Amino acid sequence: MSKKRLAAGQPDQAVGNGLLDRRGLLATAGSGSVAALLTRPTVAAAGELALEPWMREPGSPFVGYGQPSRFEEKVVRVSTTAPGTTGTGASRTPHHLLDGTITPNGLHFERHHSGIPDIDPDAHRLLIHGLVKRPLVFTLEALARYPMESRIAFIECGGNSGALYQKDPVAGGVQALHGLVSCSEWTGVRLADLLDEAGADPKAQWILAEGADAAGMSRSVPMAKAMDDAILALYQNGERIRPSNGYPLRLLLPGYEGNMNVKWLRRIKVTEGPTMTKDETSKYTISLPDGKALQFVFPIEAKSVITRPSPGLAMKGVGLYEITGLAWSGYGKIAKVEVSADGGKSWAPALLNEPVLAKALTRFRVAWRWNGGPAILQSRATDDSGYVQPTRARLIADRGIRTIYHFNGIASWAVGENGEVTHVYA
Amino acid sequence: MSKKRLAAGQPDQAVGNGLLDRRGLLATAGSGSVAALLTRPTVAAAGELALEPWMREPGSPFVGYGQPSRFEEKVVRVSTTAPGTTGTGASRTPHHLLDGTITPNGLHFERHHSGIPDIDPDAHRLLIHGLVKRPLVFTLEALARYPMESRIAFIECGGNSGALYQKDPVAGGVQALHGLVSCSEWTGVRLADLLDEAGADPKAQWILAEGADAAGMSRSVPMAKAMDDAILALYQNGERIRPSNGYPLRLLLPGYEGNMNVKWLRRIKVTEGPTMTKDETSKYTISLPDGKALQFVFPIEAKSVITRPSPGLAMKGVGLYEITGLAWSGYGKIAKVEVSADGGKSWAPALLNEPVLAKALTRFRVAWRWNGGPAILQSRATDDSGYVQPTRARLIADRGIRTIYHFNGIASWAVGENGEVTHVYA
Repeated sequence: MSKKRLAAGQPDQAVGNGLLDRRGLLATAGSGSVAALLTRPTVAAAGELALEPWMREPGSPFVGYGQPSRFEEKVVRVSTTAPGTTGTGASRTPHHLLDGTITPNGLHFERHHSGIPDIDPDAHRLLIHGLVKRPLVFTLEALARYPMESRIAFIECGGNSGALYQKDPVAGGVQALHGLVSCSEWTGVRLADLLDEAGADPKAQWILAEGADAAGMSRSVPMAKAMDDAILALYQNGERIRPSNGYPLRLLLPGYEGNMNVKWLRRIKVTEGPTMTKDETSKYTISLPDGKALQFVFPIEAKSVITRPSPGLAMKGVGLYEITGLAWSGYGKIAKVEVSADGGKSWAPALLNEPVLAKALTRFRVAWRWNGGPAILQSRATDDSGYVQPTRARLIADRGIRTIYHFNGIASWAVGENGEVTHVYA
Repeated sequence: MSKKRLAAGQPDQAVGNGLLDRRGLLATAGSGSVAALLTRPTVAAAGELALEPWMREPGSPFVGYGQPSRFEEKVVRVSTTAPGTTGTGASRTPHHLLDGTITPNGLHFERHHSGIPDIDPDAHRLLIHGLVKRPLVFTLEALARYPMESRIAFIECGGNSGALYQKDPVAGGVQALHGLVSCSEWTGVRLADLLDEAGADPKAQWILAEGADAAGMSRSVPMAKAMDDAILALYQNGERIRPSNGYPLRLLLPGYEGNMNVKWLRRIKVTEGPTMTKDETSKYTISLPDGKALQFVFPIEAKSVITRPSPGLAMKGVGLYEITGLAWSGYGKIAKVEVSADGGKSWAPALLNEPVLAKALTRFRVAWRWNGGPAILQSRATDDSGYVQPTRARLIADRGIRTIYHFNGIASWAVGENGEVTHVYA
């Protein structure tokens, strides 16, 4: 985002609810008056800083693999597990404490159906069989000889934000309510290359993908997706995928609901139709009010959430703040994010941080002058197909509240006069 | 990189030295013959895989902050320290074991001049003073109120690849020779906004940036760069910057040599001219053969290195391999990377992994059929200014061999008949 981009950006406006676009902020910041409201830095008196203890003696030495500061020990995933188990459940990314679009590997959300297997990569095999001319078994070394490609993509659990289907708003913030989405740069081999090599039968319309965990988690995937942009991912954010994300190999289906991106991938079976596994019938199917169900709802529809301000991050005095958050769509690129501070009565355009990539998290930002009064913060994403993120009411009118999957309605944070931020329906 | 992009990509060719572009590879892979050479997967006999131990019982539970697999414990930075010290020296990124363009935070290269300070973020202050109307002191909380921006950018130490100035080729691989470059998504506040607010004197042409380490590492930076794209970075790949990379605050000068991106930033002084600190006079200045020196060589010129195959990764039999590596330029985007397998006699275009971003690492890939004979692998980058990475001979003809800084000449890996890969001059 160069200055040029800002200058050529969205219109300079200050709408009634105190939302400013970024050009508006920068245009006035130089004058001093808005800047004073915004920052409250201290005017330096002596022009000198104290000599802190860490400047008085040499610091710590090198380590082979680094870790975060000890002062950031609260920046962790929070997990919920099924009763009586230890490794079945989910852990959530603390997006309210992060910024940018890449999720560090140590904080990528997890959803495990029977814990994290400890796989020896030398023993691991990938089988491709079913309706193929030549069933093939790959070692990791064989896979590593293929051409690879890298892409930045989000993965979102189909159950993320599912609590917002509940009748009354659940207490919680970004992490508890929306923390089952993360974004990484994934690198691996195109599945299409391997299916070509195995000689997949042209009349086969589906594949089955199965993991090497004790749950044997498995999903059916349309052949069209497998041949389009599916990747057998070996690397995540540069390094080998971690055990919690599928070491040594996971299926990446950009834009498709999380558990189809099968971790610990051991088997691809080419099939005529879907396999109807336990993981796509009893689970990951959307129950409707009339007793019917939507099965095989694969791509994530356009969605956004404000990460700051948000519950747990109280406002500290009136003045200017940056409202920022994340938007994504399994159908393509985010085209627009609008932000409201009055519960959806008026909207202002947010700045989208470049580069905006298809099927990746997009960071949006807009300046907001909090006047100390109550406010309801919302964000609304539009993707490049023209699809607009619906209100919660609209989504529930269509789907009812008997499901937990694919909630992408507009979420609301209330700011109280005391500066506290809470989850509400609006 | 969709199939469409490949089909519309570079010409389908198989040049004399066995280099294939990617379209060429994919076009033939479906036929079976090349594929067999390429992959040697096993044709599955029974169509079933063994039930491995990790599928027989539930896996391990959730942890707040995850780590790599225990099978990847050799993927670490390797450090060299000055005699008699523990925290002064450098650690290098193992690019031969990584893929993609993002460097995980635990493996980002380091260059410390007096170890890693253990900074309490609540006590840390940033002072902006000198030729300003209002000297200002910022807490981290004050900084966090400003509009932020995120960008993916490489940082490369000015001394990276410096061993290639030596008369005889030093034994080593990508990590030892070229490991002082890494790439992250950085998020923070635009320095221009803060300089505007402090009221920097228009006649001031420079700033001084000083770190809070015991070395008081400090560099002079042109005001034009400070006002262009400099960021006070608070986040790296989503999370707070780690101590080894400047926690809680570092200066990011996209494209400029590493140590100007001052870590643990505590002070910005606006000055008329450069300060001539110890870190830009006795160090980080290029000594020329005639006894003169080039001072203030800031941007990194276009450069590339093949990360695979490379020393330590022996070839395993004849057949097809992917040659892949990284290219970057401090002046803008990489426009082209060419790869040679015959020491620069002939070149083939590599595929550039999208998105290609300015001042960020760019991943290139090309398929290569190794026939079992000796080969010399080289890569040559061109950036969007039209600048072409020079040969080592050309660079040394200009600069001599009395310096260790800003080596961006073409590097060579020799592949022997036994499959070993070594560093050579060619």
